[in-house]
Amino acid sequence: MNEALFTANNLWLLVATVLVFIMHLGFAALEAGLVRKKNTVNILFKNVMIIAIGLISYSFMGFNLMYPGTNAGGFFGFSGFGLEAPTAPAIKYAGGAYTYWTDFIFQGMFAATCCTIVSGAVAERMKLNSFLIFATLFVSISYPITGMWKWGAGWLETLGFHDFAGSTLVHAVGGWGALAAIILLGARHGKYSERGIKPIPGHNLPLAAIGVFLLWFGWFGFNGGSVLSADPVAVSLVFVTTALAAAAGALATFFTAHALFKTHDLSMVLNGILGGLVGITAGADLMSPGEAILIGAVAGTIIPFAIVAFDRLRLDDPVGATSVHLICGIWGTLAVGLLGSKAGWSQLLHQLTGTLAIGAFTFAFAFGVIYVLKKTIGIRVSVEEELKGLDIAEHDANAYQEMENVSAYDLAID
Amino acid sequence: MNEALFTANNLWLLVATVLVFIMHLGFAALEAGLVRKKNTVNILFKNVMIIAIGLISYSFMGFNLMYPGTNAGGFFGFSGFGLEAPTAPAIKYAGGAYTYWTDFIFQGMFAATCCTIVSGAVAERMKLNSFLIFATLFVSISYPITGMWKWGAGWLETLGFHDFAGSTLVHAVGGWGALAAIILLGARHGKYSERGIKPIPGHNLPLAAIGVFLLWFGWFGFNGGSVLSADPVAVSLVFVTTALAAAAGALATFFTAHALFKTHDLSMVLNGILGGLVGITAGADLMSPGEAILIGAVAGTIIPFAIVAFDRLRLDDPVGATSVHLICGIWGTLAVGLLGSKAGWSQLLHQLTGTLAIGAFTFAFAFGVIYVLKKTIGIRVSVEEELKGLDIAEHDANAYQEMENVSAYDLAID
Amino acid sequence: MNEALFTANNLWLLVATVLVFIMHLGFAALEAGLVRKKNTVNILFKNVMIIAIGLISYSFMGFNLMYPGTNAGGFFGFSGFGLEAPTAPAIKYAGGAYTYWTDFIFQGMFAATCCTIVSGAVAERMKLNSFLIFATLFVSISYPITGMWKWGAGWLETLGFHDFAGSTLVHAVGGWGALAAIILLGARHGKYSERGIKPIPGHNLPLAAIGVFLLWFGWFGFNGGSVLSADPVAVSLVFVTTALAAAAGALATFFTAHALFKTHDLSMVLNGILGGLVGITAGADLMSPGEAILIGAVAGTIIPFAIVAFDRLRLDDPVGATSVHLICGIWGTLAVGLLGSKAGWSQLLHQLTGTLAIGAFTFAFAFGVIYVLKKTIGIRVSVEEELKGLDIAEHDANAYQEMENVSAYDLAID
Repeated sequence: MNEALFTANNLWLLVATVLVFIMHLGFAALEAGLVRKKNTVNILFKNVMIIAIGLISYSFMGFNLMYPGTNAGGFFGFSGFGLEAPTAPAIKYAGGAYTYWTDFIFQGMFAATCCTIVSGAVAERMKLNSFLIFATLFVSISYPITGMWKWGAGWLETLGFHDFAGSTLVHAVGGWGALAAIILLGARHGKYSERGIKPIPGHNLPLAAIGVFLLWFGWFGFNGGSVLSADPVAVSLVFVTTALAAAAGALATFFTAHALFKTHDLSMVLNGILGGLVGITAGADLMSPGEAILIGAVAGTIIPFAIVAFDRLRLDDPVGATSVHLICGIWGTLAVGLLGSKAGWSQLLHQLTGTLAIGAFTFAFAFGVIYVLKKTIGIRVSVEEELKGLDIAEHDANAYQEMENVSAYDLAID
Repeated sequence: MNEALFTANNLWLLVATVLVFIMHLGFAALEAGLVRKKNTVNILFKNVMIIAIGLISYSFMGFNLMYPGTNAGGFFGFSGFGLEAPTAPAIKYAGGAYTYWTDFIFQGMFAATCCTIVSGAVAERMKLNSFLIFATLFVSISYPITGMWKWGAGWLETLGFHDFAGSTLVHAVGGWGALAAIILLGARHGKYSERGIKPIPGHNLPLAAIGVFLLWFGWFGFNGGSVLSADPVAVSLVFVTTALAAAAGALATFFTAHALFKTHDLSMVLNGILGGLVGITAGADLMSPGEAILIGAVAGTIIPFAIVAFDRLRLDDPVGATSVHLICGIWGTLAVGLLGSKAGWSQLLHQLTGTLAIGAFTFAFAFGVIYVLKKTIGIRVSVEEELKGLDIAEHDANAYQEMENVSAYDLAID
Repeated sequence: MNEALFTANNLWLLVATVLVFIMHLGFAALEAGLVRKKNTVNILFKNVMIIAIGLISYSFMGFNLMYPGTNAGGFFGFSGFGLEAPTAPAIKYAGGAYTYWTDFIFQGMFAATCCTIVSGAVAERMKLNSFLIFATLFVSISYPITGMWKWGAGWLETLGFHDFAGSTLVHAVGGWGALAAIILLGARHGKYSERGIKPIPGHNLPLAAIGVFLLWFGWFGFNGGSVLSADPVAVSLVFVTTALAAAAGALATFFTAHALFKTHDLSMVLNGILGGLVGITAGADLMSPGEAILIGAVAGTIIPFAIVAFDRLRLDDPVGATSVHLICGIWGTLAVGLLGSKAGWSQLLHQLTGTLAIGAFTFAFAFGVIYVLKKTIGIRVSVEEELKGLDIAEHDANAYQEMENVSAYDLAID
């Protein structure tokens, strides 16, 4: 490959890295907007820590677990702790499409995503320290192992499982972790009672909207970067399928939610966009525009039903993370067997295999870790702490300071 | 063209696409910040739906109306419903500068912009459903037809009209739609009374500031991408003219608004930046840095006067969209005849022709559609709904949830 | 250099320009979030004006002071007022890596940064006009002169001083300006009294978190663009070192602040991220991943101590700008002599020389200008204005409008 093409390819992956990075702000803003005011600092704090933990732990071991470079077709591989850059010319990867450093930093931005999905689901009641321990283990061990099965040339790659940018490897993985966590955590106090299901609306919808727009923005890097080059036809097709699926998700949720709830629910439509994005992620490279619209529309139709269903099961998920990332992640993965250029019964079987295998491993891992945490240091704040809010309980802070805290009296004695 | 240059050119258009996309968050945040608290969910909802409707409808028909590939020099063309990608090598467009998919998605992001401009002007009083119907027709039919006149090789292109990135084709088009809408809608209750003009300040200026910074950010893609390649000299000149015009707009409004109002009005200066950006958009490729500063400074000087003038005419525009997009859009279009490398009497005449022709068509289209809506399903919420706010009336929601809705009593019966 | 490689290189610098631009929103949001509600419009206004003043003044004289193209190895040079683009082929710079316009706009985005650093430190008490005059002089004269010493081929470049992307040239420069300003301004009333140090928490932590994420996002352009080409290995290494230092800064502050304050302080961890970013900026091109983590970790450890120390010295800095930009800027500059591929005693001496020389010049300049302003038009608002807030005092506005200002009574007389 010539130097100029190498440079352009590598440049696109770096730009995509930056776009995936800002998805962490998208998640932070979305989750902060959808929780109550008294838990805002806590959810921001978690999301800030996740990206820090994710990058450091991925450099320490995750990257080498996910891309061991050995044990092709297998279940596990590890090429040692820490980053050790090859020298030129081996630093140029993949036939010269990008460098070793680019590979690491692009994948590193992805890694932390699976934990941000969990942070939303466990919001408003999980202990900070337990969450951070879980997040560290989840991103350092669980995510890279199942990631290796497909993207690290493991057994699912050999099998023919297709998951272009991670409907399963990233989103459903996060969703399975979230499901395990909310089963073990239980619902927020007051959410489900003999009087029924109490809606607990988010405290700041502009913040939630900012979050979803930024997630969609970043998704162009998440999906577009997964081409792993700047190939003009491939990347631009991915842009089209990604954008149309998101748009179709919004429209489908608009109509479905209106039919169900007789109102125009903003947070529902925001989740519809995310559902469309998660849905297209597995097959963004394989679909025509029409198929992308169909995948997004199905995802957007699923979203309101899934959110209602989780509530009926008394699985309390304040931001709808399981509906968006788990349910639509599964839908998107299976859709590769139903639509697009790889559709067919055997492909559908591969998709099902990947979904179940990764789901089983991830759920078991997350359940195990959180169960041990529950039996040891505890995973849930006290009722008192939950009532006064985690911002005061864990951070001794308020997200918003309404009162002026310097009075005329202060000035008098100044 | 060689593969590497094709890749770099296409890559820039994709990055520009992402930048234009985030302008939709810019508009959403700006408009949300400048309306009253009680109408925040509504304006966010509209902006979320606009991008979804815009992309889907543009894929269904807008793109093929705007770039029919036939009827060069004419007034109308249509190449059929839906996207149908040519196969290689025809998928590589424009001598290989970008792909068919890139072309669609970049233009698709532009398309919805014209409606977001309208959404701000009609804020706080227009019925959601009527707005969405209008927006669908405006972006599917009106915008692409006038767009075709110039960018689709129609009669204005043949004439010699110059509108580089859309001072007229996008911004004034949105502004004409906004003007038609606010004439038919009437002012918000309480805005104009026998006691004079009541200022109705925005409820969240940090949100408005976020919006304007994001719009400026995205404008580098809006104008820079309109080069339609990554040509280093052309794109970098556009970056310089765009940035300097925006900065000059801010400074000119700073001084003008202070002279007029004896205070430093943040929302006025924010609109000054946008005025500068809209003003430079038609000729961002033709101006020297000094000319760009002059165009921005004139736009920034116009803004406070235009806002006052619309108020005196009792044309109620809560966010100043008509001043920014219509007035500065016209100014920028005419400026191409007055300044820069194409300046001259005949060019000025072409600019005037384009301005008037597109203005007349767009205003008539928008006025007609909204008039029919007004006489059928109605375009305005009831006085009661307006008083309590559209968030409750249309969405049964509050943008901000101040009170904790789970009490100690809830917990007691939990 | 061939056309395709030139295009890719130039494209990266333009994308980096856009990323650096959005850092101005990052600063605006961070500073707005960390001040009291009553001073929010003021801090937003300052940040909006700074980018406008910065770009215009840099085009008028700053760029030609910083890159005079003459007087290599010297202390001062100036190539005249205004931009005058060379014609082809001279418009292609640096052996064809980017154009003259790209050079200007990338550097122009950097320039204003030094003033945004000051705006945070002087928040809540400095007169708007005095600040804007200071900012204009600081960005037009002081920043470009010291910038020329290194990046404009001046005496520090000749000496061997290394400051890759500006730990000193941008961040410490801003920090020295901030230090001079807060010494001359004095503390906010009520901050330090006989009762001790009164914490004055920020009014909107989600806004502060948005700011820091956007700053980190933009820093990929700030550091990555400073490679001045899209060289795949160099830029991707810079991405890795930048991201890991920021992450390590967060983790180090997390542990340090918890040890010191027994709580999880979000604004402290946010500053820890910024400290890590400032720290790595001087040597982002020279460090291994492990060294980057170490630099970030030291910076993150310094942050809480520095913030406490400035408070003990009664140097009131509402947003911690001096701790982040001055202290971590010095640390990062010196770290180039201690770690990485240039480490050594003589390099450390060069780093110390650059730090002291630029610090002395900048502090003297800023102190002089602000001293003159203090003795003439005054630099501080009155006690009454400070008490009621600068938003009302300087802008006659509230950042947030809680009350609906159109009542049923208004409607009755409508």
